Amino acid sequence: MTTTGRVEEALVDRREIVNEAITEQLPIQKPERLYSASRYLLDAGGKRLRPTILLLAAEAISDVEPMSADYREFPSPVNGDVDVLSAAVSIEVIQSFTLIHDDIMDDDDLRRGVPAVHREYDLETAILAGDTLYSKAFEYMLDTGAPAEKSVEALDELATTCTEICEGQALDVDFEERTDVSTDEYLEMVEFKTAVLYAAAASIPAILLGSDEETVSELHGYGLDIGRAFQIQDDLLDLTASSEQLGKQRGSDLIEGKRTIITLHARNNGVDVDTLVSEDPTDEEIEQAVQTLEDAGSIDFAREMAQDLVESGKDRLEVLPENEPRELLEEIADYLVERGY
Amino acid sequence: MTTTGRVEEALVDRREIVNEAITEQLPIQKPERLYSASRYLLDAGGKRLRPTILLLAAEAISDVEPMSADYREFPSPVNGDVDVLSAAVSIEVIQSFTLIHDDIMDDDDLRRGVPAVHREYDLETAILAGDTLYSKAFEYMLDTGAPAEKSVEALDELATTCTEICEGQALDVDFEERTDVSTDEYLEMVEFKTAVLYAAAASIPAILLGSDEETVSELHGYGLDIGRAFQIQDDLLDLTASSEQLGKQRGSDLIEGKRTIITLHARNNGVDVDTLVSEDPTDEEIEQAVQTLEDAGSIDFAREMAQDLVESGKDRLEVLPENEPRELLEEIADYLVERGY
Repeated sequence: MTTTGRVEEALVDRREIVNEAITEQLPIQKPERLYSASRYLLDAGGKRLRPTILLLAAEAISDVEPMSADYREFPSPVNGDVDVLSAAVSIEVIQSFTLIHDDIMDDDDLRRGVPAVHREYDLETAILAGDTLYSKAFEYMLDTGAPAEKSVEALDELATTCTEICEGQALDVDFEERTDVSTDEYLEMVEFKTAVLYAAAASIPAILLGSDEETVSELHGYGLDIGRAFQIQDDLLDLTASSEQLGKQRGSDLIEGKRTIITLHARNNGVDVDTLVSEDPTDEEIEQAVQTLEDAGSIDFAREMAQDLVESGKDRLEVLPENEPRELLEEIADYLVERGY
Repeated sequence: MTTTGRVEEALVDRREIVNEAITEQLPIQKPERLYSASRYLLDAGGKRLRPTILLLAAEAISDVEPMSADYREFPSPVNGDVDVLSAAVSIEVIQSFTLIHDDIMDDDDLRRGVPAVHREYDLETAILAGDTLYSKAFEYMLDTGAPAEKSVEALDELATTCTEICEGQALDVDFEERTDVSTDEYLEMVEFKTAVLYAAAASIPAILLGSDEETVSELHGYGLDIGRAFQIQDDLLDLTASSEQLGKQRGSDLIEGKRTIITLHARNNGVDVDTLVSEDPTDEEIEQAVQTLEDAGSIDFAREMAQDLVESGKDRLEVLPENEPRELLEEIADYLVERGY
């Protein structure tokens, strides 16, 4: 099987389990409109990348065969059993909360090929659905049955992560009004807005299962590296994938004037990024803009940066025992920059 | 000194300490716009009722003289020292987060006599400021230095409380579109939307300081009772206080068609509540509407219900040692329904 095939199989296998756990832990109860809005994006799809990373990291740490142990009663090398699936649901629910609120802030109409929550429902329900998922995520992270000291540490990681996601989003908004953003500033923003949740997904199983500090820290670093690579790939895909594949307008970052590593590099290399596309561009106009960025070397620049981050992330996994789950975590890193959508 | 005087003094004393703690724990750091928006409502005022209740409950439980112990190293009867001030800040920060998001949802322009955060800043900053306060509150609750099992329990109470606040707000929104809301349904909504945060404020110090289950449960019940009384009084004040005292338009609940215990009682007694005021009423129109509600007995009905809840809440405090902080908690209960704004 190809690497991509193996990763996709690992994702599909765990996605089913995560989806079932979401239905179980987040039932559509009273008030029904609130909970149905809270579930709407979760039910619309998603690869479940972050929970899959969490579950694979747990398997790598406890050195068990992939999919051989019950995620609800997962054997820790030092503590008793831990419900790592509840932690995985927590991370996915945080991701969903941020998407709902981000779509309001960006006034995006589409997400995962369906209307954004504030379009399908309304603004107040969308704000409230996000807020509900937020506290639910903390409830789920408290429900793992890990020793109290470990739960506290995991909660602390989760809370800090959420604060950083907000800070990253605020930086992103600020950047839209600035023309002098450096690539370092951009990468810091991406670290906060996107990468920290990968870091939480990779390190929280190590915390809950009682790993040593180095393992927690290296898995955290793995998450930060591949999370940044993921965002850079997302920036690339916004330009190179079709609107159909994306589930939203191709080139939307250019249209909205969002800073990306690609446009920042292009601007530093003399491209007038602000006039690349009109407000309602044709497909040809987008195509032309992408060619300009390609000619400026900006697309290759982003690709290489993503690749370097992936290599760095993979190196950090050496702290784990050599086993199949660890291999899958390495392959997921590659997959993040090879995926076409 | 009068009871009200004693309560107001207790509030003023602790408000200063809480305000200083907020400045210390939530500094305006980078990204500055985000943190200045997060602090905006907190800095605009507020009585710090909930944190004061938390601090008084801590004093009553540990049986110390009011203001005699350092809230940052507060003596627990069974554990080591606990930073109950960080827990108090956590509760106030949650309150502030809910106000910011509620003002967006209700599209209210004014709060505490200043523009709502989404008016002073913008919609996206207001959403994000609320989200930031949300995770910060969890960080503060994790920072009390209580034993891990107690921290986990307090976090669980906080997360559940936040979920219930969202559910209460969702019910409140639903009610605006229904004409058949019963007073029981209304009270359930108020319990979730408002009272649970008082319950958290009163019970979390008991959790952190290692009180027995009965004490935790009775303090929780005290919070639920006085929180409901507080909301009913708020509904009353919206009709009886001036726009100046309220820091917002008098009668705004009538104008917005919000269900309150008063309008629900009036409707059940044949008053056509929906036509009581126009969309942009004069002061005389509001005055007339209030007279109609008075004549229907609806205002007295609400006053009596609030009074009964206060008595029930005070009775629950019998679980605490007899001391001055406990007396102040009793007086706060009275104060909530006697306050004029």
